[in-house]
Amino acid sequence: MATDGLAIERRDATLDVTVDHGDQNLFSVAMVNELSDEVRSAADEPGLRFVRLRSRGAVFCLGREGASREAPPPPRAVRAVAASIAGLNELLQTTPLVVVVEVQGDAAGFGAGLVGNADVAVAAQGARFSFPEILTGYAPTIVIGWLTRTVPRKRAFEMVATGAWVDGETALSDGLITEVVPGARLEARVDERITELAALDATALRDTKTFLSRTRAMDPASAAGASIDSLVLAVAGDGA
Amino acid sequence: MATDGLAIERRDATLDVTVDHGDQNLFSVAMVNELSDEVRSAADEPGLRFVRLRSRGAVFCLGREGASREAPPPPRAVRAVAASIAGLNELLQTTPLVVVVEVQGDAAGFGAGLVGNADVAVAAQGARFSFPEILTGYAPTIVIGWLTRTVPRKRAFEMVATGAWVDGETALSDGLITEVVPGARLEARVDERITELAALDATALRDTKTFLSRTRAMDPASAAGASIDSLVLAVAGDGA
Amino acid sequence: MATDGLAIERRDATLDVTVDHGDQNLFSVAMVNELSDEVRSAADEPGLRFVRLRSRGAVFCLGREGASREAPPPPRAVRAVAASIAGLNELLQTTPLVVVVEVQGDAAGFGAGLVGNADVAVAAQGARFSFPEILTGYAPTIVIGWLTRTVPRKRAFEMVATGAWVDGETALSDGLITEVVPGARLEARVDERITELAALDATALRDTKTFLSRTRAMDPASAAGASIDSLVLAVAGDGA
Repeated sequence: MATDGLAIERRDATLDVTVDHGDQNLFSVAMVNELSDEVRSAADEPGLRFVRLRSRGAVFCLGREGASREAPPPPRAVRAVAASIAGLNELLQTTPLVVVVEVQGDAAGFGAGLVGNADVAVAAQGARFSFPEILTGYAPTIVIGWLTRTVPRKRAFEMVATGAWVDGETALSDGLITEVVPGARLEARVDERITELAALDATALRDTKTFLSRTRAMDPASAAGASIDSLVLAVAGDGA
Repeated sequence: MATDGLAIERRDATLDVTVDHGDQNLFSVAMVNELSDEVRSAADEPGLRFVRLRSRGAVFCLGREGASREAPPPPRAVRAVAASIAGLNELLQTTPLVVVVEVQGDAAGFGAGLVGNADVAVAAQGARFSFPEILTGYAPTIVIGWLTRTVPRKRAFEMVATGAWVDGETALSDGLITEVVPGARLEARVDERITELAALDATALRDTKTFLSRTRAMDPASAAGASIDSLVLAVAGDGA
Repeated sequence: MATDGLAIERRDATLDVTVDHGDQNLFSVAMVNELSDEVRSAADEPGLRFVRLRSRGAVFCLGREGASREAPPPPRAVRAVAASIAGLNELLQTTPLVVVVEVQGDAAGFGAGLVGNADVAVAAQGARFSFPEILTGYAPTIVIGWLTRTVPRKRAFEMVATGAWVDGETALSDGLITEVVPGARLEARVDERITELAALDATALRDTKTFLSRTRAMDPASAAGASIDSLVLAVAGDGA
C-alpha cells in the first residue's frame, strides 16, 4: 500500500481500510483511486467478503482536497476527478463485497458519500452529516446522482441545496445510516456486525449484495422474475 | 375450500382468509397456490372488493414449509415454488382488490412478505417482522425483488442480510406496515378500516388500487400523463 | 395580475404568490393556469430564482373549485382541468426555480399537491394534510401520479384511499414536508430559508434543481454518468 493517508490491510475476510490524513481526513485524488483499485481487486480474492472503512482522528472525513472554487481546473481534470468519485460510489453499491463504514465523527461531502453508498453505516453518537458542495459554487451533481435513491426527495433537496449538517438521528430516520451507537461502543459494534455477517454462507451473502444492485433499476415485475431465476441458479449450483 | 390450513369465505364484499396451520402457521406450497387462485378469481367477482388475511394462534406466519437447506430440491421444484411465491407477491400488489392483513403476532419470511405486499397492514403491539431466509444458506432474492421498493435501501439490506427481528415501531417508520394497535383492538380496528373503505365508491377504490400498481414502474412524467387519461375515462364512463 | 384570488409580485429574486380566495382558498381553473403561466415565464427572467407560495386566512388551500361529483362535466372539460393540474405539478418539480411553500394552515387535495410538489415546504404547527379526492367518487389518479414518488407506498395508499388528515409530524417523517415551526415563526422562517438560498451561487442552485428533476427517472448508473458531464460543463462554463 503506497498511497499516503490510507492504511489498507487484509484481516480474515475483511479488507480493512483506515483513513489517517490530517485534521479533516480529506481524500486526495490518489486516495480515491487507490481505494477503488483495492475494492475492485478485493472482489476477485476468494477469501475476502467485507470492506471496512474507518478513520483516525476527530472526524471521519470532511471531503476531498481541492474541492473549492479557487482556480477552477481544466475540464479534462474535472472530468477525471468526477469520474473517480462517481465511479467509487457506484463500485461501493455494486461490488459483491459487503461495505461497512465505521463513522467515528463528522462526515461531509465525499466523506458523507462513503457513508451513503455503503451497505452498513454505524455512526458514533454526535457524528453529523452534510453535503456542503454547493457552498463552493457548483451544483453537487455527483451527490444528487445517488442521494435521491437513498433518502426522500425533500430531505435530499434540503441537504444538497443548503449544505446544512444533519445529526445522526435524522440521518438514521432518513435512511442515510444504519445505526447510531455510543462512541465507546463503535468499534465493538462494527466487530459484532461483521462477525454476525461472517457466520452466514459466503455465497448467499455475496448473492444478496449482487442481487440488490442488479435489480436497482428494474421495474418490480422484472425484479420478481429475476428473483426466481437467481434462486433456481443458487440452489442448482449447490446441488451440482 | 379444500386446502388444509386455510379457511376462506366470502363475507359481504370481503374474501376472508384465515390461516390456521400449526404453531408457526407455516404455508405449504398448496396453501400458497390456493391463496393465489382465490385472490385471482375473487378479482373477477363483481361483489368482492377486499381481501382480509389473518391467522389463528400466537404468530401470524413464520414462513413456509421446507424453507431450509436440508436436501436441496431439484431445480424444477425450486422454480415452481419460487414462481408461486413471487407470483403471489406480485398478485397482491396488482390485484384491483384492496388487500388488508391483520397481524396478530410475529411474521417472518413468506409471512412477512404477505405483510409487505399488502395495501394495508395493521399489526398488534408486540408483533415483530423478519426475513431470516439468508440463515438457511440462500440469498433471499424473492424478498429483495420487492422489499427495496417498500423500505429504504439500508433498512432493506439490514433486514435481508441479518435476518434480525424488527419491532412494530421500526416497521411502521420504515413503511413496511400501516399501523400498530393494542392487541385487544386489532380485529375491531381492521373491521373499522374495511367499513370505512367499503363506504367509498367501489369503482373509485378499484381504480385507485389499479392505478397505483399500473404506474409503479413509470417515469414521473408518464405517470402524470397516464393520470389525466385515467381521470377522463373514469368521468366519461360515469356520464355515459 | 388579472386573476381574482391570486396576488403575484416580484420581490428581489422571488416570485411571490399569495392566495386569498375565500374561506377555503379554493383554486379556480383560472388560478391554476395563471400560476402555471407565471412560474413558466418567471423561469426565463434572469433575476428570478425563487417561487414563494403562501395564503391568507385560516387554511392554506383545501382544494379546487368544482371538485365534486355533482354534474360530471364533459370529458373535454375534465381533460383540460386534469391537464392543468398535472401540468402545474410537473412544472413545480421541473422548473429551475426553487419552489418554497409557506403553509399557515390545513392543505388538502390540490392544495396538498402544491405542498408535495414544492422543493421546500415549511408548515406551521397544527397544519394538516389530506387527499380527500376519493370521497367525491373518483380515483385520485393525479395525486397517485406523483405521491408514490414522494412518500412510502403504504403511506401513499393510506392517504389516497381514506382521505384522512395527517398531522405535520407524520407529514414530516413521511417526506411530504420539510419542516414544522411554531405559527408565529412561519413567515420569518421562510424569509430565513430564502435568504440562505439567495446567498448561494445562482447558477449552482439552478443547476441543482435542474439536475434533481433531470435524473428523476434515470437508472442509478446513468445518473452517475450524467453527474460527471454536468459537473464538467459547469466548471468549463465557468472557466470560459
